[in-house]
Amino acid sequence: MSTAHIMKPAIRRLAVLTRNFSTSGAVLRPRPTQASAAISASIRTPRHASNPQMAFPCLDKREQKSQALLNEGPEPAYSKIGRESVHIYKSEEPIFLDYGGFLPGFQIAYESWGILNADASNAILIHTGLSASSHAKSNSLNQKSGWWEEFIGPGKYLDTDRYFVVCTNVIGGCYGSTGPSSVDPADGDRYATRFPILSVNDMVRAQHRLISQHFGVKKLYASIGASMGGMQSLAYAQEFTDEVEKVISISGCAKSHPYSIAMRHCQRQVLMSDPNWNRGFYYDSLPPHTGMKLSREIATITYRSGPEWETRFGTERADPSKQPALCPDFLIETYLDHQGEKFCLEYDANSLLYISKAMDLFNLSKTNRDKAEETRLGSEARFTGESTRDIKFSSSECALPNEPYTEKPRRRVVSFEEEKDDLRQGLEKFAHKDVLVIGVESDILFPVWQQREISQFLKESAKKLGISNGDNIRHVELGEDISMYGHDTFLLSLDYIGQPVRDFLG
Amino acid sequence: MSTAHIMKPAIRRLAVLTRNFSTSGAVLRPRPTQASAAISASIRTPRHASNPQMAFPCLDKREQKSQALLNEGPEPAYSKIGRESVHIYKSEEPIFLDYGGFLPGFQIAYESWGILNADASNAILIHTGLSASSHAKSNSLNQKSGWWEEFIGPGKYLDTDRYFVVCTNVIGGCYGSTGPSSVDPADGDRYATRFPILSVNDMVRAQHRLISQHFGVKKLYASIGASMGGMQSLAYAQEFTDEVEKVISISGCAKSHPYSIAMRHCQRQVLMSDPNWNRGFYYDSLPPHTGMKLSREIATITYRSGPEWETRFGTERADPSKQPALCPDFLIETYLDHQGEKFCLEYDANSLLYISKAMDLFNLSKTNRDKAEETRLGSEARFTGESTRDIKFSSSECALPNEPYTEKPRRRVVSFEEEKDDLRQGLEKFAHKDVLVIGVESDILFPVWQQREISQFLKESAKKLGISNGDNIRHVELGEDISMYGHDTFLLSLDYIGQPVRDFLG
Repeated sequence: MSTAHIMKPAIRRLAVLTRNFSTSGAVLRPRPTQASAAISASIRTPRHASNPQMAFPCLDKREQKSQALLNEGPEPAYSKIGRESVHIYKSEEPIFLDYGGFLPGFQIAYESWGILNADASNAILIHTGLSASSHAKSNSLNQKSGWWEEFIGPGKYLDTDRYFVVCTNVIGGCYGSTGPSSVDPADGDRYATRFPILSVNDMVRAQHRLISQHFGVKKLYASIGASMGGMQSLAYAQEFTDEVEKVISISGCAKSHPYSIAMRHCQRQVLMSDPNWNRGFYYDSLPPHTGMKLSREIATITYRSGPEWETRFGTERADPSKQPALCPDFLIETYLDHQGEKFCLEYDANSLLYISKAMDLFNLSKTNRDKAEETRLGSEARFTGESTRDIKFSSSECALPNEPYTEKPRRRVVSFEEEKDDLRQGLEKFAHKDVLVIGVESDILFPVWQQREISQFLKESAKKLGISNGDNIRHVELGEDISMYGHDTFLLSLDYIGQPVRDFLG
Repeated sequence: MSTAHIMKPAIRRLAVLTRNFSTSGAVLRPRPTQASAAISASIRTPRHASNPQMAFPCLDKREQKSQALLNEGPEPAYSKIGRESVHIYKSEEPIFLDYGGFLPGFQIAYESWGILNADASNAILIHTGLSASSHAKSNSLNQKSGWWEEFIGPGKYLDTDRYFVVCTNVIGGCYGSTGPSSVDPADGDRYATRFPILSVNDMVRAQHRLISQHFGVKKLYASIGASMGGMQSLAYAQEFTDEVEKVISISGCAKSHPYSIAMRHCQRQVLMSDPNWNRGFYYDSLPPHTGMKLSREIATITYRSGPEWETRFGTERADPSKQPALCPDFLIETYLDHQGEKFCLEYDANSLLYISKAMDLFNLSKTNRDKAEETRLGSEARFTGESTRDIKFSSSECALPNEPYTEKPRRRVVSFEEEKDDLRQGLEKFAHKDVLVIGVESDILFPVWQQREISQFLKESAKKLGISNGDNIRHVELGEDISMYGHDTFLLSLDYIGQPVRDFLG
């Protein structure tokens, strides 16, 4: 941990140089006041610092945690998901991915509620956010409350008396579906960072196999999701337009935006900088719990919003009787600390990296989707061609430019307007479907302009193609007077989300 | 770096357990399609992974940097500030601080432009943001461009033909003023994290000695600053109300708010988690350049805003011909990476922590300021009393509660309304002064409601106390149509900031 004893020549020189400089202002001279005299007296005692050394109990705790993990466990929670608590669907066909990689086979963990009717016309697929498992609601396999417990059930917003509701863990995840912590059958080692880059569209194409091949569902009654689930819901409609009746996207978007990429970038960089991450190969050693904790603290900022925190935490300190500290001190800090701590062993670090990246890459623009399809089909063709196993994957190189970045406006390859029209064209494919888009004004991660964009482009396309006057696209926006919970509104303000969903499902 | 070979019993057990589970979905069976057949063929070659290992050139670079620093340098830039490039004011009187600590003496690095007139009535003090030096503009000691180069000068917004302009490095900083990298005269070692917790008001009380004792200025013509400088400018008016004529606060606030504390909390936690930070004692070893870089990347997000990034970077990737990667990949990521890299050896890590914390603690409420004064006077009294050097500093303990945090509304000690009125009362003290407040709509770190709050409370107080109808408080807000540069507008849109400043100075 400590590097204090590493003293190479240059550093030693630096220490001497700066010490000479810094000392210059602190030479002791007779002081005129009483206070100064007191100091002069006090400093006669050697090595008695002017002020006490600050304590760092938050770092002590973290070090103790590492030690405990090395000695005793606990095991990371995600590794405890057993087959007894979820259903596992296995696809032994390979899946070819948007950015050129593939999985030779995969499995999907899923759970379901309600009963699939005879003509398989009442299935609703729930898509999850980044780190959620398939456990949206308690069931016979797992009695624990799910992450949307009160949203689903007999008579509830997703009414299991009427619908057969399915939720999966996305591929790339760690709650039973194939992800970086799974073993690559090709060599028997874990994928780790040999896992291929995923897209959100890849996730829904994997889910589609479960829906069509396992359940024999030819058309979902509805596809619904919030956050990354809202992305997936749109992606499902784009990929399998004729196989879904109604599309619901809550606090989602049609394409990521730079602030959200920037926030996720920081989460990934922080995690990848934890030495225990070890470039993804930590499964047989200490997991990067510190990087995971920090990453989750940053993420938590994006999940909640200013107005709620202002009311809830203000600037109160957790214990005003204590000195301010560099360890968590304000109420808001202890909240973030706790959120990070709670999560740091709940989720697989590599899953977080890959899925976070998939969110950055999410882009339903026509050009982007056409390119992905070309890549996928190309991989598949090469795969089934004569030169077996001869796919030329370009290595995932870092795109850091060799020249340092300078402050200048970028030269756009395509204009802002062209980019927008490209996105509109991407959405055009399902502009004739019944779509419900819900946005929340206090959301800073998926701001309301992103949901307005989805609705606007779908409506414009519907009109342009002479499909409708846009009535099939419903748009609901929750103002700050209704929810101050920001991005997490879908988990916390169930009634405000649920009512329009119920109305829309009919 | 690598921990792959640490294999304690519990971890080993975990590895086996999870491997058993994860492998279950990947057992090889005969596959029906051509593609599957190809895979079966390919995996006969042992240890041939399905996809290539991802490259991490960003981590390679970082490791090379550590190695180079250990071998050769470069020395951190802040250590290169020599006395030849700044003036140094030394105060050999102790300074007692708001939260109970003290400095037995201190020095302030400063630079000046223009000439102090005979009655010392034309001095303008510029307060800096978190990481800026006193070098606001080039001068005879240092020809390099300053951080407000075009704002200051003959005929410019701060007209050095008319005014004597002074800028200092704040105490706690590392550009020549006393900070954590300075030597504690009491024991001859660097303060490091034995440096006392600072407040923004402490910073201005140190500056006041330079202004009053060194320059003999009884009354500043103006006090001006942006960001943390905007905090300081208000703090100066509150501490030395009769010693300043005009007060300018740009993109500042009267009290921090939870989102800004949360963002700075993450920056500090990330930095403190770099093993090289070593609880602040890194001066003789490898500096925590990784933690500094990550911290600056997070900070950069708060300095700029959504609308600018949307136009400038959009979601373009730096090199679309390459595979997406977990290392920086999108244009916005390479921008953040570069901002972090540029900064990571420019500034002292401990200075960043202490000053960032001072910003969190900034709170001009009456109750808070009264308490600080009581603490300071108490320290001083004990100091000059009989039991010399017997100040009972409570150790800076971490305020993390022993009980895990649970999701519930906090029980406020004082109501939201009482808190607001307390802040209004704190500002009352200088409600009769000429004050100019400037805010920028696209600023997410110091959002416009914070500047509106300053103006509103000052105006209300002025009316309440029968001082004026509030005309002495000028408020300017720059909309998104004028500046999309967010918090950094004061550095980038000089004309929009400068014009109201010039008008106000008269």
